[in-house]
Amino acid sequence: MSKLVPPHGGGPLKPLLVEPTARQDALARAETLTRVPLSSRELSDLFMFGMGAYTPLDGFMDQADWRGACVDMRLANGLFWPIPITLSCGHGTAETIAEGDEVALMDEDGAVVGILRVAEKYTIDRALECEKVYGTTDEKHPGVQKVMEQGDVNLAGPVAVLSEGHYPETYKGLYFRPAETRVMFEERGWSKVAAFQTRNPMHRSHEHLAKIAIEIGDGVLIHQVLGALKPGDIPADVRVKAIDVLVENYFVEGTAVQAGYPIEMRYAGPREALLHALFRQNFGCSHLVVGRDHAGVGDYYGPFDAHHIFDTLEEGSLVTQPLKIDITFYCRKCDGMATGKTCPHGEEDRLNISGTRLREMFANHETVPAEFSRPEVVEVLQAYYDSIG
Amino acid sequence: MSKLVPPHGGGPLKPLLVEPTARQDALARAETLTRVPLSSRELSDLFMFGMGAYTPLDGFMDQADWRGACVDMRLANGLFWPIPITLSCGHGTAETIAEGDEVALMDEDGAVVGILRVAEKYTIDRALECEKVYGTTDEKHPGVQKVMEQGDVNLAGPVAVLSEGHYPETYKGLYFRPAETRVMFEERGWSKVAAFQTRNPMHRSHEHLAKIAIEIGDGVLIHQVLGALKPGDIPADVRVKAIDVLVENYFVEGTAVQAGYPIEMRYAGPREALLHALFRQNFGCSHLVVGRDHAGVGDYYGPFDAHHIFDTLEEGSLVTQPLKIDITFYCRKCDGMATGKTCPHGEEDRLNISGTRLREMFANHETVPAEFSRPEVVEVLQAYYDSIG
Repeated sequence: MSKLVPPHGGGPLKPLLVEPTARQDALARAETLTRVPLSSRELSDLFMFGMGAYTPLDGFMDQADWRGACVDMRLANGLFWPIPITLSCGHGTAETIAEGDEVALMDEDGAVVGILRVAEKYTIDRALECEKVYGTTDEKHPGVQKVMEQGDVNLAGPVAVLSEGHYPETYKGLYFRPAETRVMFEERGWSKVAAFQTRNPMHRSHEHLAKIAIEIGDGVLIHQVLGALKPGDIPADVRVKAIDVLVENYFVEGTAVQAGYPIEMRYAGPREALLHALFRQNFGCSHLVVGRDHAGVGDYYGPFDAHHIFDTLEEGSLVTQPLKIDITFYCRKCDGMATGKTCPHGEEDRLNISGTRLREMFANHETVPAEFSRPEVVEVLQAYYDSIG
Repeated sequence: MSKLVPPHGGGPLKPLLVEPTARQDALARAETLTRVPLSSRELSDLFMFGMGAYTPLDGFMDQADWRGACVDMRLANGLFWPIPITLSCGHGTAETIAEGDEVALMDEDGAVVGILRVAEKYTIDRALECEKVYGTTDEKHPGVQKVMEQGDVNLAGPVAVLSEGHYPETYKGLYFRPAETRVMFEERGWSKVAAFQTRNPMHRSHEHLAKIAIEIGDGVLIHQVLGALKPGDIPADVRVKAIDVLVENYFVEGTAVQAGYPIEMRYAGPREALLHALFRQNFGCSHLVVGRDHAGVGDYYGPFDAHHIFDTLEEGSLVTQPLKIDITFYCRKCDGMATGKTCPHGEEDRLNISGTRLREMFANHETVPAEFSRPEVVEVLQAYYDSIG
């Protein structure tokens, strides 16, 4: 019997991807249906449904679930869920759709990627969603902006996912579905597995976080965000290469697994940290490393809001627990890696290099200190910056 | 309400030290009683009873509890207890004692330190105890040796403890009873507290262990063994001083508490690791750092036997859990502290200095590398070695 944490809700995984044998029929049927274009966020959520990461949801949320997720972090049936997963369309499209209809879901290129059976059409109070989920209605917040820009009508109902997009092909050897990471963990005899989420290459501070997770568990899942990122972010293939050389040279064999998943960041800070923990449970992870300002952006959240929110949950909301770690850095006086919780020294002893300064160093071919990033990692990144230079 | 782990057995702490007001009467009564001298191990166990560390025991074990502790790690009433806590005397003395009698317990100087009401006299199969608890009957094992040397008759029954010996005086500011460490933790708002047990000064590897514990909890209890040690061990006052300078210079204020307790090591390896976890629960610790060869001696135990034994326990045996950490060292390639679980490099990259070699370095005033021990700690130890030189 598996000793891994159970999927969220306690039942089996629920990947909503249609079996290959049924896909052609479904695509043919979709030809005749009203087409609803997906935003990049909605598309990434569809892929999350497809792979089973949003188990036990059957599809996009109806109004009761939307409101529950926003206000109480609970679906109408009581299940813990901290962020609404919704689909929208414009008024014009909505008028052509009746409840009970099937609609075809389209990606940015117009390809059909799924079929939704519309159980409910409804409108939402966007300000409520933004206030509750993002803690702000400021449209400069990238997550808020997407809510404000979405269509006026939400379409709810079960989805049949017909495509995983370019992910399985583009990220071969990295794109692993929850059922697959579970098998990987079981093959390694792991039960206590921490997910380390990253959308960046791993420098020594990230290595330190991952290694704390390894110390107290069986291994770490280095879990890359493969969905749309912020401009200036390093592409996933370069990140993978940089992480590969790090793991090869600095990790004990069999203690780290790399994988990626197709979510698009909402930058909802504490609420998103909860969602990240929730679907990590589906991937089989007992813990999620939650660092400083997890899933944050700008100054919208306090540095440890994403730690504290876990303490407010009712017992049993999540099986997967946070592994809360303070800000992490190299300290000269400690003569090693440390965190705000273990280093008593001052800012002047700590090696901090901002993302902007780091990019500048690469642009100028300055030497990035080995205390900040492993030389093997620097080499991969320098080659990337040279290639786009 | 306290969020600390409950005392072992789930009831209140049971310190067996008699109230000061009743002590004079008890001492006067003891004058008339048969006197039973305690071995140094028995005396240290009496002090453990006195401070409440062996909660919920009422005194030295009877035959059923002795056998249960040896064979099943359970008392007759089912309570988990991994090592028998017994008192012995010679045949001659035993013949003068009837079940139901009170006897006076004496320390090495002949001072009365407690009163035992004898509930049972019994003899044991020493080989069984040694085999089950120590995994060997080899009399070169220091724990086995003490069992083999003890008196032929065990005396069981509840004890009234009349003295804590020299500990409260000698270790003022360090000798804290379970009720006191619990208050210290509560004052600091801690609930997840790991005990780091040491009978040595703390070098960087020990600092690393303690800091892993701090990362994942609220704080660490640096818990010194104050009972009799092996010859060549550094005296407790020097250790305290060396640990003080380490904590002052390298720990964040409010993350570490120092305390000491009067146990004498049995060197029973895995079984003793369980006992260490058990009474740490009484002190209010949710975790015990269990390193390589915890409580071991010589080659009697595999390096991780004390890790594995925790996996064999029935659910609910202990609330306090092990924080299992591999061998810890400075690695040149990692450029920092690491463990066998996080460092993939070879022995040649790791800085290991044996106890013997370290003493030699101090004797010769060689420079101890800062990667092995903090300069402030080295200074304290050098002064000590110079003083005994």
